[in-house]
Amino acid sequence: MSPRPSTSDLPRGFSFAATACGLKKSGLDLGLLVSETPAAAAAMFTTNQVYAAPVLASQSNLRESRTKMRGIIVNSGNANCCTGSEGVAAAASTTLKVAWELGRLHPSQILVCSTGVIGVPLRAEKIRHAIPHLVRTRRATAPAFAQFTRAIMTTDTRPKWAAGKFRTAGKLVRILGCCKGAGMIQPNMATMLAFIATDAAISAALLQRALRCAVAPTFNSITVDGDTSTNDTVAILANGESGVRKIVREGADFENFCDALEQVCRKLALAIVEDGEGAQRVIEIEVRGAPSPRSADQIARTIANSPLVKTALAGADPNWGRILAAAGRAGVAFDFERVYIRLAGILVCRRGGEHPFSERLVHKRMLAKYVPVVVDLRSGRARARMWTCDFTGEYVDINASYRT
Amino acid sequence: MSPRPSTSDLPRGFSFAATACGLKKSGLDLGLLVSETPAAAAAMFTTNQVYAAPVLASQSNLRESRTKMRGIIVNSGNANCCTGSEGVAAAASTTLKVAWELGRLHPSQILVCSTGVIGVPLRAEKIRHAIPHLVRTRRATAPAFAQFTRAIMTTDTRPKWAAGKFRTAGKLVRILGCCKGAGMIQPNMATMLAFIATDAAISAALLQRALRCAVAPTFNSITVDGDTSTNDTVAILANGESGVRKIVREGADFENFCDALEQVCRKLALAIVEDGEGAQRVIEIEVRGAPSPRSADQIARTIANSPLVKTALAGADPNWGRILAAAGRAGVAFDFERVYIRLAGILVCRRGGEHPFSERLVHKRMLAKYVPVVVDLRSGRARARMWTCDFTGEYVDINASYRT
Repeated sequence: MSPRPSTSDLPRGFSFAATACGLKKSGLDLGLLVSETPAAAAAMFTTNQVYAAPVLASQSNLRESRTKMRGIIVNSGNANCCTGSEGVAAAASTTLKVAWELGRLHPSQILVCSTGVIGVPLRAEKIRHAIPHLVRTRRATAPAFAQFTRAIMTTDTRPKWAAGKFRTAGKLVRILGCCKGAGMIQPNMATMLAFIATDAAISAALLQRALRCAVAPTFNSITVDGDTSTNDTVAILANGESGVRKIVREGADFENFCDALEQVCRKLALAIVEDGEGAQRVIEIEVRGAPSPRSADQIARTIANSPLVKTALAGADPNWGRILAAAGRAGVAFDFERVYIRLAGILVCRRGGEHPFSERLVHKRMLAKYVPVVVDLRSGRARARMWTCDFTGEYVDINASYRT
Repeated sequence: MSPRPSTSDLPRGFSFAATACGLKKSGLDLGLLVSETPAAAAAMFTTNQVYAAPVLASQSNLRESRTKMRGIIVNSGNANCCTGSEGVAAAASTTLKVAWELGRLHPSQILVCSTGVIGVPLRAEKIRHAIPHLVRTRRATAPAFAQFTRAIMTTDTRPKWAAGKFRTAGKLVRILGCCKGAGMIQPNMATMLAFIATDAAISAALLQRALRCAVAPTFNSITVDGDTSTNDTVAILANGESGVRKIVREGADFENFCDALEQVCRKLALAIVEDGEGAQRVIEIEVRGAPSPRSADQIARTIANSPLVKTALAGADPNWGRILAAAGRAGVAFDFERVYIRLAGILVCRRGGEHPFSERLVHKRMLAKYVPVVVDLRSGRARARMWTCDFTGEYVDINASYRT
């Protein structure tokens, strides 16, 4: 991934800014994404019973201004979660300030997101203080976008972004997204933080539908550690500035848009797994031949979260027995003596038993950056895919003293 | 835990033997437990859909000979799982050989267990070859029992055993158990391997009931890594050699027996967590004030398996936000703004927000060998307890190349 998109990737009518407001010990920690004209908005949020104040605020703002959203303000360094009524006030005062500085907008026209440590009061005055500068310095440029992607990072080792384009009636529509996330990753209905800007013209209802479709096989199909965050949010703004005709019903235009959006989401989701805390490689777990899509997903998810599978993958150890054993505890009935497993393209398990393979060859292939694992149950026609990463000592090091 | 029990802990009429038959590169790998007279037997087995050949064999033998069981043969170094029909034949020929050598018994009078790597053919001829020696050298002594406890170990760093006693009608009844297990631990209905011998006299039906009751709050309430093994077995033999009157109905005698058995099981289960792969400390997760026992258990289990919680515990980091966030993704509805959390006895979270605490003091207390965590939902009266261990880089090291 190059450090930033080219100017031609930028959707029209969006600008970006970032600054260091002092929530992190050092570095950028506050980002602003602005649509210069009112945009349709859609978002999905964490399903965790414990959710942060900005999630609550953004959900409420989205209900009020889904056809005329103007921007997203994001801080890193503090999740503003489990911070009580003061946290709610902090989120509200942040949107209020951004709305005011952008030209006396209604506060509900701004979405707000936070990421970082849970349970520590957010010093919102630092954010409010920085907002006028942030608003003034926003630019519709690739470097400004790149700064924004850096400002939302926590344990991420690199910024993550993806761009997509498609043509409709001769006109170009651009989709540009970015996200953060490396730990506490098993999104459910939404993911860590992901922000997508597009100059497509689309109704808010269809935008929400397109987002839901795009999220299921992408952000909702990745895991780093099985932990769902309290702050997961994926939000998209569509301002119509490409000048194309507005999508107001399903059909070819909508399909094109959905395809391009899903591609952007997939790239972003895979970038999260690739940057998983301590990860050396991305593992694609594909379960085939399952009795139902739900059972396929359950098995893929259980394998993708098994510490024993993930540590074996860290050692590039072709321990297919652990993969089969994890499948067996997924709560799905199947006959394990029908199962075939391919590791990095090589058949290692046939009918639930070992299929002779070259240990050295499989090990070598498992050292790659991307390792496909296929588990074929031969008990039906459903399939599911999950992406996970390996589990290394570095994950433990990162998380043993994250807070202190 | 002392390395072995005293002679007075040994239930009457049981003998033990161990040997190195060559399944492991070095060390004891084959153990035999014999009741010199027919014993009532009960057992619980893994609920993993993928189960080993010896599990199948033992289940079948238990059905046939539950009132006249005579022994248990156990090998380490190979799980005899995913080994096809040859694995089934290997397990059967093992019980056959033991039964014959013990005096032409019926093969169903012997239970068989295996533990070790999955998916590698078991060289049963090594076991069969060693059996005559094993049978000949069995002894009703504490050192022989100690050897048996060592022969069943895999990644365990120490043997685990527990003894219990109670009096009934002036006569002493003894219960002596041992177990192995350090990884792939989240038993469900049963656990890793645990073997319990008692000279109590009890009907096979009540013995099974007592075992089920004892296993739920002990072996089924521990986790090391959330992975359920393919070979989990807990088995008990009761031969009546204490000379007490036989327990044939519920009542005071049965209660006494159940209490003593549960205590033995609890000690064994905690010994597994304490010896969890790479573990530095045992964490007791107690969930109180839950709407139902099932939801309490689900939340306790989710916290106990959260990699983020377990790594924070490795660093003795009082990161209560992760505990609350894990509770929130357990699939149980609750109001997180009612939640109280105590870490190592100190209140750190009150009504879902931070309660001021001395970071240094909590950190210091969290460095102990045993750390209690209490999560009070204040949303009901149900409670549940789970025991887990912290998640260290050593766990990863152990498991990254277990097979190779």
